[in-house]
Amino acid sequence: MELNIALLAGDGIGPEVIDQAVKVCDAVAKKYEHKINWTSALTGAAAIDAVGEPYPDETHEICMNADAVLFGAIGHPRFDNDPSAKVRPEQGLLKMRQKLGLFANVRPTFTFPSLIDKSPLKRERIEGTDLVFLRELTSGIYFGKRGREDNGNTAYDTCSYTREEVKRLAKKGFEMAMSRSKKLCCVDKANVLESSRLWRETVQAMEKDYPEVEVSYEFVDAVAMRLVQWPNSYDVLITENLFGDILTDEASVISGSMGLMPSASLGEKTALFEPIHGSYPQAAGKDIANPLATVLSAAMMFETAFGLNAEAQAIRNVVDKSLNEGVVTEDLAGEQKAYKTSEVGDWLVQNI
Amino acid sequence: MELNIALLAGDGIGPEVIDQAVKVCDAVAKKYEHKINWTSALTGAAAIDAVGEPYPDETHEICMNADAVLFGAIGHPRFDNDPSAKVRPEQGLLKMRQKLGLFANVRPTFTFPSLIDKSPLKRERIEGTDLVFLRELTSGIYFGKRGREDNGNTAYDTCSYTREEVKRLAKKGFEMAMSRSKKLCCVDKANVLESSRLWRETVQAMEKDYPEVEVSYEFVDAVAMRLVQWPNSYDVLITENLFGDILTDEASVISGSMGLMPSASLGEKTALFEPIHGSYPQAAGKDIANPLATVLSAAMMFETAFGLNAEAQAIRNVVDKSLNEGVVTEDLAGEQKAYKTSEVGDWLVQNI
Ligand SMILES: CC(C)[C@H](C(=O)O)[C@@H](O)C(=O)O
Ligand SMILES: CC(C)[C@H](C(=O)O)[C@@H](O)C(=O)O
Repeated sequence: MELNIALLAGDGIGPEVIDQAVKVCDAVAKKYEHKINWTSALTGAAAIDAVGEPYPDETHEICMNADAVLFGAIGHPRFDNDPSAKVRPEQGLLKMRQKLGLFANVRPTFTFPSLIDKSPLKRERIEGTDLVFLRELTSGIYFGKRGREDNGNTAYDTCSYTREEVKRLAKKGFEMAMSRSKKLCCVDKANVLESSRLWRETVQAMEKDYPEVEVSYEFVDAVAMRLVQWPNSYDVLITENLFGDILTDEASVISGSMGLMPSASLGEKTALFEPIHGSYPQAAGKDIANPLATVLSAAMMFETAFGLNAEAQAIRNVVDKSLNEGVVTEDLAGEQKAYKTSEVGDWLVQNI
Repeated sequence: MELNIALLAGDGIGPEVIDQAVKVCDAVAKKYEHKINWTSALTGAAAIDAVGEPYPDETHEICMNADAVLFGAIGHPRFDNDPSAKVRPEQGLLKMRQKLGLFANVRPTFTFPSLIDKSPLKRERIEGTDLVFLRELTSGIYFGKRGREDNGNTAYDTCSYTREEVKRLAKKGFEMAMSRSKKLCCVDKANVLESSRLWRETVQAMEKDYPEVEVSYEFVDAVAMRLVQWPNSYDVLITENLFGDILTDEASVISGSMGLMPSASLGEKTALFEPIHGSYPQAAGKDIANPLATVLSAAMMFETAFGLNAEAQAIRNVVDKSLNEGVVTEDLAGEQKAYKTSEVGDWLVQNI
């Protein structure tokens, strides 16, 4: 099979972790006799520096012509404490999500037996946790009307959802629940927000089409609690954009394996795969960042974008093996020897 | 001193835990020679049943004429899965906050040495945690314009803030930071939301008036993570209404002492004190609920509303004593004997 993949390395540690994922993908492709055509493109602060724009049209072109997008990270501290900066890397991220139509952000949180003790939670709380969030990614308060009034002294943002937007996200949620343990939790704030009431009534109306799925409805504040108390009581969760931003980040640290968590963002026409750890600027260029989240994102890509399950499993197996044999970067090494980012990549390639 | 206190027991376990707090307050008042005039009023589902309204005008009258309000909890499961119910207990809560002008919700999270092992977090993560959130409580998306368009197929909510609203909340935050360790964290989503940019620029402009306070700015998603990872790295945090709803609930479970966490809601004219645990309907009427959060809320009331610090400390001391001697309800008893709600209250009174 011929695989056309757009490669957006982005900022911070993005380029180093992407390099390892590319090596691993090429090794898998060789083993299973595929041909990958990689096309690199600029994004984030790197793109602002080069062409004054965090998501240039040329990059969009490349993504639209690819079968899938593999993405590193964007964001740079020099923009962080300057809320008035005219061009910001995050705008590129939001523009990319919207222009590519990536409406469903899939973020799993699971545990690796060998890493349970890295979790801030006690073993008995976190053991067996295997949940996945579907976060709506192209609507809500991120993309509603916003502005200032009264000489800049009043600021507003609008959270708006249409029934169709809720439906297409919820449909993915029901389907994912069917392929897992048939439990779906709809997270909202229907006791206060009108948009949440639309979410709840839309999901309620879909229940009859999936009679086997057991659906629960929980308020976002209650979920923020239970994620810390009993994370393993959840399976598939669906939610709107801003709640998803907060809760998926909260969920990402409970496993203690944040450096390993992959994600996918799905649209009608294309899909994008990225590690959730962000650009981690303090580590950029040092060859110390953990590449495994990006490598596991590539596994999700083989499975979700190309339907190549054996290839995905081959990647997951070699990642498990590296963890079991302690071939890991400093964040996971503890008292043991810490490998460099590129050394972990090389080891994975040799063991595919 | 003569203390005029409005008493809103509310729903679920509200009445039982309020009863214990009243007994304790009366005992403290006797010891320190104060006279408390209690005036009870209806609120929540109880008020809907009695007069068709969750926050009746008469209740408001009573609150406005009191020096402080002691509140139990509101909410009833019969309203929970009916987003379209016309009258809901929560509306009473929101109306009460707005009409009483309770713009600053103060929610501490701290640990009790004897309860550290109840935390879902590992001991070394949670030990020493002593933080306090100031959540803006009368504006933002809770009170902005909301509605439906397009035949009910589009729903929207508006988050709006004025500079003055941010200032008065931030002022309380800076003052609280000055009385503690002089560290203040402003939690926002300034990389996306215009209202957050107003928050950030307003707080930045206030920094010069509090040169001793070290201010940091963090995104809400990052705080949702760090609260689980390193809760003891925070001290005073200020944030807007919805972020505060989510994060204070998340923070409340990390200590493992949710049943003990008090809160205060401060306004220009009056202040309200309540346990954060909610109405806990499953336990209502069983005399098993933990009354300590309500008793500690009464301690906050003595201190904050009346400036009676010795009285507040006397309450805190007797609560500590009950914990150390194992005079606790079933949620904390473990293998030991569990006391009834009313028995804990009686014991506190005898030991004041
Ligand atoms: C950088 C920021 C705009 C972004 C978001 O809020 O969506 C990030 O937090 C994420 O979750 O991908
Ligand atoms: C009941 C609900 C409206 C309320 C809120 O969201 O403010 C509650 O969660 C709280 O935090 O007091």
